[in-house]
Amino acid sequence: MSASSWGSRFVVTTFGESHGMGLGAVIDGCPAGVVFDHDLLTNNLARRRPGQSHEGVTLVTDRNEQDQPQVLSGVFEGKTLGTPIAVVVQNQDQRSGDYEKIKNSPRPGHADDVWKGKFHHSDHRGGGRSSGRETLARVIAGSIAEMLVKQLSPKTQVVAWTSQVGPVALTKEEIHSSLKTQKNPKNIDAFAARLPHLEKSIEVKELLLAAKKDGKSYGGIADIFVINPPPHLGQPVFHKLKSDLAGAYMSIGATHGVELGYGFSASDAEGSQFHDPKNDDTHRYGGIRGGISTGEPIHFRVAFKPTATVLHHAQSGRHDPCIIPRAIPVLEAMTYMVLADHILWARQDRV
Amino acid sequence: MSASSWGSRFVVTTFGESHGMGLGAVIDGCPAGVVFDHDLLTNNLARRRPGQSHEGVTLVTDRNEQDQPQVLSGVFEGKTLGTPIAVVVQNQDQRSGDYEKIKNSPRPGHADDVWKGKFHHSDHRGGGRSSGRETLARVIAGSIAEMLVKQLSPKTQVVAWTSQVGPVALTKEEIHSSLKTQKNPKNIDAFAARLPHLEKSIEVKELLLAAKKDGKSYGGIADIFVINPPPHLGQPVFHKLKSDLAGAYMSIGATHGVELGYGFSASDAEGSQFHDPKNDDTHRYGGIRGGISTGEPIHFRVAFKPTATVLHHAQSGRHDPCIIPRAIPVLEAMTYMVLADHILWARQDRV
Amino acid sequence: MSASSWGSRFVVTTFGESHGMGLGAVIDGCPAGVVFDHDLLTNNLARRRPGQSHEGVTLVTDRNEQDQPQVLSGVFEGKTLGTPIAVVVQNQDQRSGDYEKIKNSPRPGHADDVWKGKFHHSDHRGGGRSSGRETLARVIAGSIAEMLVKQLSPKTQVVAWTSQVGPVALTKEEIHSSLKTQKNPKNIDAFAARLPHLEKSIEVKELLLAAKKDGKSYGGIADIFVINPPPHLGQPVFHKLKSDLAGAYMSIGATHGVELGYGFSASDAEGSQFHDPKNDDTHRYGGIRGGISTGEPIHFRVAFKPTATVLHHAQSGRHDPCIIPRAIPVLEAMTYMVLADHILWARQDRV
Amino acid sequence: MSASSWGSRFVVTTFGESHGMGLGAVIDGCPAGVVFDHDLLTNNLARRRPGQSHEGVTLVTDRNEQDQPQVLSGVFEGKTLGTPIAVVVQNQDQRSGDYEKIKNSPRPGHADDVWKGKFHHSDHRGGGRSSGRETLARVIAGSIAEMLVKQLSPKTQVVAWTSQVGPVALTKEEIHSSLKTQKNPKNIDAFAARLPHLEKSIEVKELLLAAKKDGKSYGGIADIFVINPPPHLGQPVFHKLKSDLAGAYMSIGATHGVELGYGFSASDAEGSQFHDPKNDDTHRYGGIRGGISTGEPIHFRVAFKPTATVLHHAQSGRHDPCIIPRAIPVLEAMTYMVLADHILWARQDRV
Repeated sequence: MSASSWGSRFVVTTFGESHGMGLGAVIDGCPAGVVFDHDLLTNNLARRRPGQSHEGVTLVTDRNEQDQPQVLSGVFEGKTLGTPIAVVVQNQDQRSGDYEKIKNSPRPGHADDVWKGKFHHSDHRGGGRSSGRETLARVIAGSIAEMLVKQLSPKTQVVAWTSQVGPVALTKEEIHSSLKTQKNPKNIDAFAARLPHLEKSIEVKELLLAAKKDGKSYGGIADIFVINPPPHLGQPVFHKLKSDLAGAYMSIGATHGVELGYGFSASDAEGSQFHDPKNDDTHRYGGIRGGISTGEPIHFRVAFKPTATVLHHAQSGRHDPCIIPRAIPVLEAMTYMVLADHILWARQDRV
Repeated sequence: MSASSWGSRFVVTTFGESHGMGLGAVIDGCPAGVVFDHDLLTNNLARRRPGQSHEGVTLVTDRNEQDQPQVLSGVFEGKTLGTPIAVVVQNQDQRSGDYEKIKNSPRPGHADDVWKGKFHHSDHRGGGRSSGRETLARVIAGSIAEMLVKQLSPKTQVVAWTSQVGPVALTKEEIHSSLKTQKNPKNIDAFAARLPHLEKSIEVKELLLAAKKDGKSYGGIADIFVINPPPHLGQPVFHKLKSDLAGAYMSIGATHGVELGYGFSASDAEGSQFHDPKNDDTHRYGGIRGGISTGEPIHFRVAFKPTATVLHHAQSGRHDPCIIPRAIPVLEAMTYMVLADHILWARQDRV
Repeated sequence: MSASSWGSRFVVTTFGESHGMGLGAVIDGCPAGVVFDHDLLTNNLARRRPGQSHEGVTLVTDRNEQDQPQVLSGVFEGKTLGTPIAVVVQNQDQRSGDYEKIKNSPRPGHADDVWKGKFHHSDHRGGGRSSGRETLARVIAGSIAEMLVKQLSPKTQVVAWTSQVGPVALTKEEIHSSLKTQKNPKNIDAFAARLPHLEKSIEVKELLLAAKKDGKSYGGIADIFVINPPPHLGQPVFHKLKSDLAGAYMSIGATHGVELGYGFSASDAEGSQFHDPKNDDTHRYGGIRGGISTGEPIHFRVAFKPTATVLHHAQSGRHDPCIIPRAIPVLEAMTYMVLADHILWARQDRV
Repeated sequence: MSASSWGSRFVVTTFGESHGMGLGAVIDGCPAGVVFDHDLLTNNLARRRPGQSHEGVTLVTDRNEQDQPQVLSGVFEGKTLGTPIAVVVQNQDQRSGDYEKIKNSPRPGHADDVWKGKFHHSDHRGGGRSSGRETLARVIAGSIAEMLVKQLSPKTQVVAWTSQVGPVALTKEEIHSSLKTQKNPKNIDAFAARLPHLEKSIEVKELLLAAKKDGKSYGGIADIFVINPPPHLGQPVFHKLKSDLAGAYMSIGATHGVELGYGFSASDAEGSQFHDPKNDDTHRYGGIRGGISTGEPIHFRVAFKPTATVLHHAQSGRHDPCIIPRAIPVLEAMTYMVLADHILWARQDRV
């Protein structure tokens, strides 16, 4: 197991510093014969890209990244070969001069100082490998995982959205009713800040535009659903599906909490009601029991702390007033990576 | 990576069904020269054991387990050898007859049905490997991790406690003031339900005694602190300390959520205040920044759903009205396992 | 990956010192539903056991081991559960007093001194974990691998034998003609020193009886065949079947070389003849091309150096004048472990 | 563990098909602070490159590869960052038309047919990932391993050479006397076919020039020495140094055998002489006892079968009459990878 690798069967290794030559991912363990959907990959990268505007408004950093993925290996005549798939994105926009001045002044809330303490030698330019740009490689890997999952389990769909930004939050009812109508990430993208609620998305838009101007930032919460997941995924005891998903989400920068199904509110519950077989609330367990998917929708929530960089915007780093909208494709990517891994792992469940 | 293994350097593999011949753990990767503290091991096992009474009251299942650990290998003349340490506990109390009658009636809220669906062949007796008894092996492994951590970083102390059981909860202030006074698991054990607050622990005791009589159960929350952790633990990007801890906690049965530091309440925060360098609230980041320990106290909270088994107590399974008090030593064990793993991993940070 | 673990899908972890409390193996990754053949396990352990006599003559060490395996977990009602299978053998015969006197005099040719240099603290009794007794755990794990392989690929048979002991060697023709007649390990066991040739096995018997008396010992060579192996096993590029088998064999104590098919004699070959499609010598490639099994018989040869311990027999260690006969079941076990691993691994070759 | 990954601490993942877009390696686990020696990397790649001439004679394939390595990540201001090091080589010379005609006629002795059987979908152009060009990524990774090893253990030197090509072979005495004089790979490169013997290298040159003309090819043997290795490398029991080195060498295409020290000739030996403490032949154990390096020179020999492709040269593939000379830098690379892995692994030997 290496630091920048994830997964046991569908093994993803990522690399790349924010302002180095390039970033990318190598996927080893993807079976042969998966139809390679290049559009899916570029669409997902576009969805993650900073500088994109929603409804004509650029809510997020103005850094202009082209993120053209180059598939170096593992794909031939439109299908995977069963060999490692390497995808590389060259860094285009390396205005590291912007960052030179902050070389010796670690930014509050960032990891610059702890990385320096750990490695003694670190790339201070834009966070180096601790930059949010690192998530680009996750989206690459997650996109290939998505191709595999879609081919083996066509009805399975991962969809994530923003359910809270600072003071503006969806209610539990709004979340569950969104689940019924918003089963497609594309629909979610149409809402400002990817918060799927007409009025509240406008509220959030105004909040973030003001924040950008004022040097403020907000934390928030994202919801992730897996609709029609394959049942029986997850490996007892240390690689329960909930364990691997929680670890995957918490490996993303700025995440501070995860919960499954009723999560922390299950703490208040009394068991004879919570577990009552007549209780038809399918959301309480979040689609996972005994660590294993039941086939019901899987539901996780992930909490993020406020972005730190916005505070020293004057120091010329270019960043977001709220990270959640951009994190949505990353959360989907991590979910597909875990699903792909466990779908392959389950092939050895029975003789 | 195998399903019942955890860790990259300090590698723990556990085994055992609830009503099989025995359970145990093999630890591979523990360096030679660790003083083997057999009392620490047996004390931790006693702390996990069901049937124990607090203040004269047995709050938890009456199942009587002796849990005598037998150290088969890896220890010689009181010190570890650098070879795998295998510790086995023979199951003494195998009243599986009690469970025979429930063979074909999967218990609500349990994993019986999903395991059957996954493996087609499963041990229905007392949950088999999905039983809470599985955590015994975690405590064994965690105890050995604790020996290693204590020897390499003597000031480091993991302490966990119950901070909520159903409707009774510690406030944030009570939690942080407990941290100042309750730095020793032994002190925590003196409180009913391991909730370190005089009045509230009595409330909880009464709640649980009533629940036991009425066939009720409660969810809750546990706090875990690492006091004086080594700084610079955690590996970017997929094995951040927060990622591995979150995954470790979520691998425990009945857990439904984890949060680091301010966790979900960081979602409401505004960044210019949250990250303000003049903000001396050391708890907001939970001791981890950029995925790496800063040296400040690490703070996680873990949510549990209500116990399920109590509901069919009449069917003769013997279980707890609230799992948190018994889960405390398990949470501590998982924490030590992750710390031990990352302490060894950090040895390759620099040339 | 841990030091005492082997395999990627069928993951074996072994533990135990020669004169500690016990030895054993945990197998994680064996699918559910494998019929557990306890006789197969005990027969293989008996075949490995020192102290056994062939044709009324005890050629090997007189140490009397009972080696009663206790299956602690992972098996229920005669079939595997898909959970870790732990098998333990308690050490019965711990005459470590015999070894006490050699505590400070490392034995020539043994690993005592290098282990001491590596770990600073080591178990000097009978070699500790570097003792040949460690192979007992390999035979346990290999037996379970054999059960899996036999159930999934019933015609596959691993058979190994002694083809050289010091100066007495089978010719290449004798080896290949043995392959036609000796497809069953039981037949091989009937020959002294497991060398399947009437006259030469008698020669070897006399050689070893004399060696035992004179404090001499011999190296030798073993042949391993996999008859009717599943085709397409092996993973490019670092886990070719030949790579994993070679590593597996060379992990056994006293091995000094391996060769596949024509092996070192292929070095002399000229290619236009060697690879000539009309060349119907199926043995040249050893059943593996491009690192992948072709379905033809797999053939490896493994070289062993002479046993060292016999030299200081007077120092009361009890050992063999030639290790090969006892190594035969160990080589078979390692072969089954690699086959089981790759059979499961191949399940993710194609979408 | 993934198919194209090697190592436990110094983890190498390679990717790339012979005629795809590019090849490369990601190294995860290299500590921060290693001085990155770009010349060492390009020199090693040049040494591996086909088309190079020795003494004015091009013995090997005329394929012209530029092999310009691009370091995408993990290095900053001349030193490693502790993050993954990705190095990519774009394929320049993709005359796959040459190979198009052999699409449906698998080449004798190659892996084309078994890969097709395994994956159902394969890249037939020049062997795809089973091409010898795959070793380029090994040399990249091995070069970075070499930088680490040299920094931590400056006196350690790996040197490999050709000791046999078809009928022309060095004697054991010539091998050991070469060890005394030829401690530098650069010296070896000066000999035709990298066989360090004046007369015999001329013999081999003539043999291979004739072979190239006649469509013949030869197998052979390479010697690998590690001079001044760190002592105490190797992990009992499954990752002995001899096991990992043997597996590493046998993962290279065309290898058919490995031996340590006296190897197969140790099979003939009698133990009381072989192990005699007065026996000062340091070569018998090959520098490894009990699976652990003793500090004496490590010596392995690796056997190769004859190259296959030369046979159908008319089909326009461009290949070598003997693979050994080009395999020398690859063997050195694999050796450095294993050494780097075990040097880091040994950091957790003792508390």
